[in-house]
Amino acid sequence: MAEKINVAVIGASGYTGLELLKILTVHPMFHITYVGTSEGGEDVVKMHPSLLNVAKGKAQKSEASQIAKVADLAFLALPHQASMGFAKVLLVHGVKVVDLSADYRLSQEVYEAHYCPHEDPENIPKAAYGLPELHREAIKSAQLVANPGCYPAASLLALVPFLPYMRADAPVFIDAKSGISGAGKKPNPLTQFVNINENMMAYNPFSHRHEPEIKEQLFLRNNQPKQVFFVPQLIPITRGMLVNAYVQLKENIDPVAVLEAFYANEPFVRVRKEPVTLKATAGSHFCDIFAKEKESVLFLSSSIDNLLRGASSQAVVNANIMCGLDEYMGIPTLSYVP
Amino acid sequence: MAEKINVAVIGASGYTGLELLKILTVHPMFHITYVGTSEGGEDVVKMHPSLLNVAKGKAQKSEASQIAKVADLAFLALPHQASMGFAKVLLVHGVKVVDLSADYRLSQEVYEAHYCPHEDPENIPKAAYGLPELHREAIKSAQLVANPGCYPAASLLALVPFLPYMRADAPVFIDAKSGISGAGKKPNPLTQFVNINENMMAYNPFSHRHEPEIKEQLFLRNNQPKQVFFVPQLIPITRGMLVNAYVQLKENIDPVAVLEAFYANEPFVRVRKEPVTLKATAGSHFCDIFAKEKESVLFLSSSIDNLLRGASSQAVVNANIMCGLDEYMGIPTLSYVP
Amino acid sequence: MAEKINVAVIGASGYTGLELLKILTVHPMFHITYVGTSEGGEDVVKMHPSLLNVAKGKAQKSEASQIAKVADLAFLALPHQASMGFAKVLLVHGVKVVDLSADYRLSQEVYEAHYCPHEDPENIPKAAYGLPELHREAIKSAQLVANPGCYPAASLLALVPFLPYMRADAPVFIDAKSGISGAGKKPNPLTQFVNINENMMAYNPFSHRHEPEIKEQLFLRNNQPKQVFFVPQLIPITRGMLVNAYVQLKENIDPVAVLEAFYANEPFVRVRKEPVTLKATAGSHFCDIFAKEKESVLFLSSSIDNLLRGASSQAVVNANIMCGLDEYMGIPTLSYVP
Amino acid sequence: MAEKINVAVIGASGYTGLELLKILTVHPMFHITYVGTSEGGEDVVKMHPSLLNVAKGKAQKSEASQIAKVADLAFLALPHQASMGFAKVLLVHGVKVVDLSADYRLSQEVYEAHYCPHEDPENIPKAAYGLPELHREAIKSAQLVANPGCYPAASLLALVPFLPYMRADAPVFIDAKSGISGAGKKPNPLTQFVNINENMMAYNPFSHRHEPEIKEQLFLRNNQPKQVFFVPQLIPITRGMLVNAYVQLKENIDPVAVLEAFYANEPFVRVRKEPVTLKATAGSHFCDIFAKEKESVLFLSSSIDNLLRGASSQAVVNANIMCGLDEYMGIPTLSYVP
Repeated sequence: MAEKINVAVIGASGYTGLELLKILTVHPMFHITYVGTSEGGEDVVKMHPSLLNVAKGKAQKSEASQIAKVADLAFLALPHQASMGFAKVLLVHGVKVVDLSADYRLSQEVYEAHYCPHEDPENIPKAAYGLPELHREAIKSAQLVANPGCYPAASLLALVPFLPYMRADAPVFIDAKSGISGAGKKPNPLTQFVNINENMMAYNPFSHRHEPEIKEQLFLRNNQPKQVFFVPQLIPITRGMLVNAYVQLKENIDPVAVLEAFYANEPFVRVRKEPVTLKATAGSHFCDIFAKEKESVLFLSSSIDNLLRGASSQAVVNANIMCGLDEYMGIPTLSYVP
Repeated sequence: MAEKINVAVIGASGYTGLELLKILTVHPMFHITYVGTSEGGEDVVKMHPSLLNVAKGKAQKSEASQIAKVADLAFLALPHQASMGFAKVLLVHGVKVVDLSADYRLSQEVYEAHYCPHEDPENIPKAAYGLPELHREAIKSAQLVANPGCYPAASLLALVPFLPYMRADAPVFIDAKSGISGAGKKPNPLTQFVNINENMMAYNPFSHRHEPEIKEQLFLRNNQPKQVFFVPQLIPITRGMLVNAYVQLKENIDPVAVLEAFYANEPFVRVRKEPVTLKATAGSHFCDIFAKEKESVLFLSSSIDNLLRGASSQAVVNANIMCGLDEYMGIPTLSYVP
Repeated sequence: MAEKINVAVIGASGYTGLELLKILTVHPMFHITYVGTSEGGEDVVKMHPSLLNVAKGKAQKSEASQIAKVADLAFLALPHQASMGFAKVLLVHGVKVVDLSADYRLSQEVYEAHYCPHEDPENIPKAAYGLPELHREAIKSAQLVANPGCYPAASLLALVPFLPYMRADAPVFIDAKSGISGAGKKPNPLTQFVNINENMMAYNPFSHRHEPEIKEQLFLRNNQPKQVFFVPQLIPITRGMLVNAYVQLKENIDPVAVLEAFYANEPFVRVRKEPVTLKATAGSHFCDIFAKEKESVLFLSSSIDNLLRGASSQAVVNANIMCGLDEYMGIPTLSYVP
Repeated sequence: MAEKINVAVIGASGYTGLELLKILTVHPMFHITYVGTSEGGEDVVKMHPSLLNVAKGKAQKSEASQIAKVADLAFLALPHQASMGFAKVLLVHGVKVVDLSADYRLSQEVYEAHYCPHEDPENIPKAAYGLPELHREAIKSAQLVANPGCYPAASLLALVPFLPYMRADAPVFIDAKSGISGAGKKPNPLTQFVNINENMMAYNPFSHRHEPEIKEQLFLRNNQPKQVFFVPQLIPITRGMLVNAYVQLKENIDPVAVLEAFYANEPFVRVRKEPVTLKATAGSHFCDIFAKEKESVLFLSSSIDNLLRGASSQAVVNANIMCGLDEYMGIPTLSYVP
């Protein structure tokens, strides 16, 4: 039996950190040797009481040089800007890095226009964009993978197969809905139960930072700029994401046939004949996609678990590929249905 | 003190029937003299236990000739097709009718293309479309008012002010979300708690029957056909509706100024500076609208209570107007917040 | 037409403050002349956006002497301890006070054992306990009314009719559930949507501060100490409260007959033949009670809206009584069903 | 590598059937050779769309003699009464049976008093009660295991350790709450989203059929009859169960120490120092228990996943034991948090 690969989870106190711990604890080949948080010192079970009798140990105050001593690969479940500081050092020490933040997802120019000055621009071009259905070969040989944002993951898997059919001059509209876990663990008034239960609203319409990420990835696929208008919304559920896209086509097509051909060999993209439901993917790595065409207008509806396919299970898939393991080893397939 | 006006509620067992009973029971000028259901004989409180100590009496098996004897105005909270049978007779007897079904909302041609053969085509042209912000004068003198569908109500109030600014050749996309009460009271698998809780999905994309209603009303406003692509969705809340629309404009505009001018004298349309929330209108007759423009693309987000502004409070507003009462007499203003 | 009575709402930024504003804004005889918050200066609509086009004006930094100049009666929707400071001064100025905090609900001894030192002990014996079904006469002549806690209101209305039948030596168990609005508006980790959605848990079992309030009120009714064990729980709903009580009886009784006799003339207590639902009272002032006996053991289930019957509508009923108005003037009767 | 054991899932269309399929599909040693439903012929993925790319094959119309040919062990996820017909025949053919219905949980006398005449009374005494923490040895050698009801599972695990300390003459009160999946998949008015969302209510108070099951199991542990008063309630969540019990003790005890001693070697019972949450066990086989004592009164709060520990994961644990496998092979440990 092969020896296990030592991994570190940095930023273990948040929701994506917890999902990483859950997947990695039962993963056949990864062994967690380092759990890092910003403060350090917390018992993992105290931090995540649902892990009693499942995981154990203490979190440490994250330090890149310490991580490099005990881990071959590190998952960075950190806010943007915090992440690049760690990645830079870890890469120097030869540690493989899967970065769940935005820090290496965008070109330097676009990043700095929407986030902040970049402190590690040299590594940006070396990072693979971690959506294997679109970038598998690059991920295989990468030392650094930039895990996609949750909205871009769901959007790109739906849109990319249709790039050849889109009218060049017409905008793409994306109306997206995310469960509240997407807003992170830190208490704030908006995500209080009383505010969001029985409620729903758009936020940052046309100005969310995942909009340029989607645009850039679409551009990279076919070297054509694409107008994208993106509106995210909060819905009163804990986890899950539904992304609807409206696309104007050059001609009539059979969109289901396009999807089925594009994803013929991809077990974790499921082409649906009925409109996708959010819940059929919650708890799993699946991305479900539905498509319907009418009068050269295309409706796409894509469903993922925002914390898994939109973050943590995607990160482990990328780690599997980077380490030469079976791509889907230890990846959750069973959804939270019923 | 003026004498009260006798009214009938036909179809009192459903959700919109219950909302009518609630509003009319505390209405200063309407007096319910007839409560009709398809079977008759049920105690109103047995049918709606929340009305104990609020309402009383028995429902009767609905009969148009009986209704005409005791009521000056009838609310028809019936399924389409059932409604026109009653309306036809009631109108002959001089009873005013507010029809909450689809039966008189559309031209005969469009109706028959999407519903069924019409049994009372003569009265279609006499019906006023019951959205007072757009058709107040017609409602004043009408004996028959066709109450708008819930999706069209929220969509039209947002879209109509922008008709002069829309690109003629570009489609309008409407991504709409409804609470589950919109699916009616009859048990079905889709609306079981376990199926819809923590879930969300589109249904009838590009083929819902409110799409032609929206198109026809937009056409009637400016005699120009408009391509409309409409996708409704179910969200895991009981009541409320959020309608997002994506519109391509001829030029840059200040959309908030357009809305504020259009609705300057309309107390029940509230122009919001922040994206509207579904809950701020639930329980009330308000329609909240938010608008944002970027690169000649317009995002609209409109929130109503699907059972009130989308059905029953709208019906009572129409009845108020038809009877010469103050338009907003007895209309709910207090939302279910918190 | 009688002149309106000027009232002040102190603590207007919280949930019970909002409910007071909602009820008072449409109340026929009360006129809000003062809206107070701890900071002052906020626009009422900014504080509560759902009140746009319903209420207006600015909140003021609460000051007792200013309040006394403009209001005949003040509602104190403040935390315990903060309340007594205001009440003390307002009473000196002849202002009637309905206090929604715990400050005057308990004897000094019990209060200080569970809360903090009391700063206004002289007024404690003058305060009427504001549950009119049990203390109507005292409220009529009181200048100061202590509005009951939400759990005690639901518990006492169910338990008091059965005091003569209870076994003296046997404890009463109360298993209570509250919607999340009961935890107040201030963000905290426990009441984040992600933590409480699809979740439920007890808190402060056998040590919640409403336990001594229930015990003391039961004692005052029949001068016999009563063992009460109280466990509150949070449930994933916004508003509403369900209180179950388990009581050992001296003998077999017909509990429904007991309740019906006790509440024969009380329109806002509804004796139910089926187990009460939480939603049938949400949005209204009703208290619904169900009772079942088996082998000399009594099960009671009582449902109220925690923010209305458990706070704000109860406060307005008390104010109505104190001012000689019709007891139920302007009190909400229509529940949030469906 | 050991050869896999062939198993059948009968009643695969319901919620517990789905959970069995999910666990067994990824179980290292069980191989599903037969999927049975009452009608047969349905594609498994059509029946459970969330299983696309996870499971495949067609359900068959359940027939005991066919099952016996292809399976060494059968899971019966059937309604009571239906189950015993299958079990009887399967046992004759030497098939091991885990019955998730009530058919073999009770003595014949108690069963017939609360359910219906028993058609297979000979096998009742041969059935082991499938709660391994209490009956592990009996399960090891049993051919037939009666899987506990969901409420009894959560209640007994909390109560049994305290039997030596209970006052013989005092009743035990159980106030239990179940997620809606406990009501099964068949649509009915009560479990419609609109009825149960933002709502909660007791049902069958003091007359639910799990009450005699709890009483009988408590009696079997110490040969003393115990008065048990049981009130189940529905709460607006999909899955999970919280059971509170109120017990009068002979003397003061340290209840946490009692639990920790009793469950010292049981990895799937977690003794909690804080009141248990429903969600920390949802999705897993864990039972979390909290205990607090005051004045010789004991409060117990127990949390399980009603479909897993209360049904399907318990059934697979029992099958593991019956087949000599590691007791917890393939049993879910990762809860649905966040």
